[in-house]
Amino acid sequence: MGIQTRRIERDLAVINSFNATPGQGITRFTFTEPYMQARSYVAEQLQKIGARVETAPGGNLRGRLEGSHPAFPSVMTGSHIDTVLQGGRFDGVAGVVAALEVARVMVEEKIPHRHPVDVVAFAEEEGSRFGSVMIGSRTWIGKLSPEDLDRLKDRNGISYREAMEEMGLRRAEAPLLKPGMVKAMIELHIEQSLVLEERGIPIGLVEGINGIRQFGVILKGVPNHAGATPMALRHDALQGAARVIAAVEEIARKEMGDPTVATVGMISCEPGQANVIPGRVDFTVDIRDLDSERIEQTARRVIAVIRNICQDRGLTFEIQPRSDTPPVRLSKEIIALIEESAREKKIPFLPMRSGALHDSSILPEVTEVGMIFVPSQGGRSHCPEEETDLEDLAKGTDLLLSVVCKLAA
Amino acid sequence: MGIQTRRIERDLAVINSFNATPGQGITRFTFTEPYMQARSYVAEQLQKIGARVETAPGGNLRGRLEGSHPAFPSVMTGSHIDTVLQGGRFDGVAGVVAALEVARVMVEEKIPHRHPVDVVAFAEEEGSRFGSVMIGSRTWIGKLSPEDLDRLKDRNGISYREAMEEMGLRRAEAPLLKPGMVKAMIELHIEQSLVLEERGIPIGLVEGINGIRQFGVILKGVPNHAGATPMALRHDALQGAARVIAAVEEIARKEMGDPTVATVGMISCEPGQANVIPGRVDFTVDIRDLDSERIEQTARRVIAVIRNICQDRGLTFEIQPRSDTPPVRLSKEIIALIEESAREKKIPFLPMRSGALHDSSILPEVTEVGMIFVPSQGGRSHCPEEETDLEDLAKGTDLLLSVVCKLAA
Repeated sequence: MGIQTRRIERDLAVINSFNATPGQGITRFTFTEPYMQARSYVAEQLQKIGARVETAPGGNLRGRLEGSHPAFPSVMTGSHIDTVLQGGRFDGVAGVVAALEVARVMVEEKIPHRHPVDVVAFAEEEGSRFGSVMIGSRTWIGKLSPEDLDRLKDRNGISYREAMEEMGLRRAEAPLLKPGMVKAMIELHIEQSLVLEERGIPIGLVEGINGIRQFGVILKGVPNHAGATPMALRHDALQGAARVIAAVEEIARKEMGDPTVATVGMISCEPGQANVIPGRVDFTVDIRDLDSERIEQTARRVIAVIRNICQDRGLTFEIQPRSDTPPVRLSKEIIALIEESAREKKIPFLPMRSGALHDSSILPEVTEVGMIFVPSQGGRSHCPEEETDLEDLAKGTDLLLSVVCKLAA
Repeated sequence: MGIQTRRIERDLAVINSFNATPGQGITRFTFTEPYMQARSYVAEQLQKIGARVETAPGGNLRGRLEGSHPAFPSVMTGSHIDTVLQGGRFDGVAGVVAALEVARVMVEEKIPHRHPVDVVAFAEEEGSRFGSVMIGSRTWIGKLSPEDLDRLKDRNGISYREAMEEMGLRRAEAPLLKPGMVKAMIELHIEQSLVLEERGIPIGLVEGINGIRQFGVILKGVPNHAGATPMALRHDALQGAARVIAAVEEIARKEMGDPTVATVGMISCEPGQANVIPGRVDFTVDIRDLDSERIEQTARRVIAVIRNICQDRGLTFEIQPRSDTPPVRLSKEIIALIEESAREKKIPFLPMRSGALHDSSILPEVTEVGMIFVPSQGGRSHCPEEETDLEDLAKGTDLLLSVVCKLAA
């Protein structure tokens, strides 16, 4: 009885059989054929246990187990089933199959609950098809309008709304989410990093989701002949960039320390020929922390270093803001409840932050939110090598069951 | 009498009026319409002073002023009239118009010479159209065969030979160059760097042409989520590359010192997203010096640093050879002769090396070679901003005249 690992295994296998790139990781873009097949499978499984399945604004899927007090706010759990290009078998899907298994066990074991329990699969979390992340959850809470869904288009010029309607998702049956309608939302997700594995701990208790500051940097020097220009007469933009990139790591690692992270993920240089001194380099800086002030401090330090390096080397620079997402603190009450359940079940856990964004970053505007992480082998994610031990996933699902039952009781 | 600056100015203006990218620098790819118009202008100017104009193997243009002893080896001077994409008005052309003016003055002033004097315009020095540099000079000395000219193709699949024949250059009238046929070759060229300008000296006396070692470097780490992966658990290929790139400069500038130069001119990273830690970085290293042993030493040091950085950071690396061109020492006799003429004319000069390759790098296999540099304003070259003071160019031409007259006497 209770959580059954082999059912979780089967759900994963069936959902991941719907895949646009067999043999080359999992590709399941929102509102494509494989996506709709996976969505139908989840809907059927929910219907089988008596859940009322509806389409919510933004094309999200919701399956509701009515509680003994239908007017009570619901307890929501789930994640997403869309993937990145050639991604893995767990990102998003793990949280949907965990939620499904929790609902099954609640029905099988006739666990009494006054609050409705909602199993959800959000649409377009990854932004792989329509170029913008978390469209489903943002639409459901009213942050994106129907006009926004007309404006958001895929590479073929098909709008989010057209794609939804093409798949028969013309009408939202569930209402927009307003404060008071949902008591709590709990999302189980893979960690997408190495921390749990390195520490040998099966559960991460997420206290907050990192804020992100991204900006582009352009360094300009003087392109010149790589053979004819002595070292002392150069204004080499890439040599300047190399010092800045090294400093980005030093600042995050040594000056700021954990949990600040800073990354240069893109770089290009012009004219980009082996025999020409680079006259211009473009790169990005991505800074994340749970604390806005620490993000601000890191960004200020990076920009100060850029200024100094440019002065020393006769370069000029521009900073181009890309995005600035504030950190999200998850619900203290939910965190305490997950912690309590983990202690009861004697499952070791590690309080941690989420470095990645999730639909759970969006929902604190309307409800109390908690997240449970399970380990990612080798920290790999968004790639075919993405792997999570099924026993870890089962432990996380068992913990999710306990928390949902307490909240819905 | 003597060298006339306004004739040089007019030759430059006419040749540069034949241009595929008016208003955006000079683009004159080998055997295109603008190229053939420029070539015809040079040929006409040579015919006007009684030179015998012929096409040499590889499509090079040669105009010969017969000497009083026609069987004597010739004294050759010239450069090229092809350009890079959106290049400048002087690279190559300066040496052709200087040679033309030298020949004009020799005829006008009836300067006696036993040796024939050859004014040449080599074809495809830049490699802009057929992807390989100095095709004309290499073909003329027999280093490239007719089959090679069939194999070398432009972006539209047109072979070097087809392009030549399309422009009516079917038959080489001049013979392949063998040792003994040319007494000396003197090329005037713009410096393409800042050294003469910084020192305020109008003439560079080129003692040698740098050797070049180029190799590609691939660094591989682990691509991972930029938010979820703590700094201490990263294997960031770009952070490794930043240290290597900085070291390339340090090694050239501080460990080796002048005249060694080392440049990283190309860089790319994968997956190349702002929110993903780079798992792979590709970049190039270009090392130049007049001394093979110093090039070798620099390359060994760079590779040792790559090895250390990869060990420290848990990265792997590959080195991919790209090219290895040995340095060329120019003729001591010709250098002494240019120096003597410069002293006689009281023109200040600076012994220096050429950082760039020229047709003069090829010709030492068949003759004694010398080069005269004139200053490039701001060191700019291969760009529309390329500029040389006409008075400097006239001084260089006057020096060239003196040297050619002595050699041909």
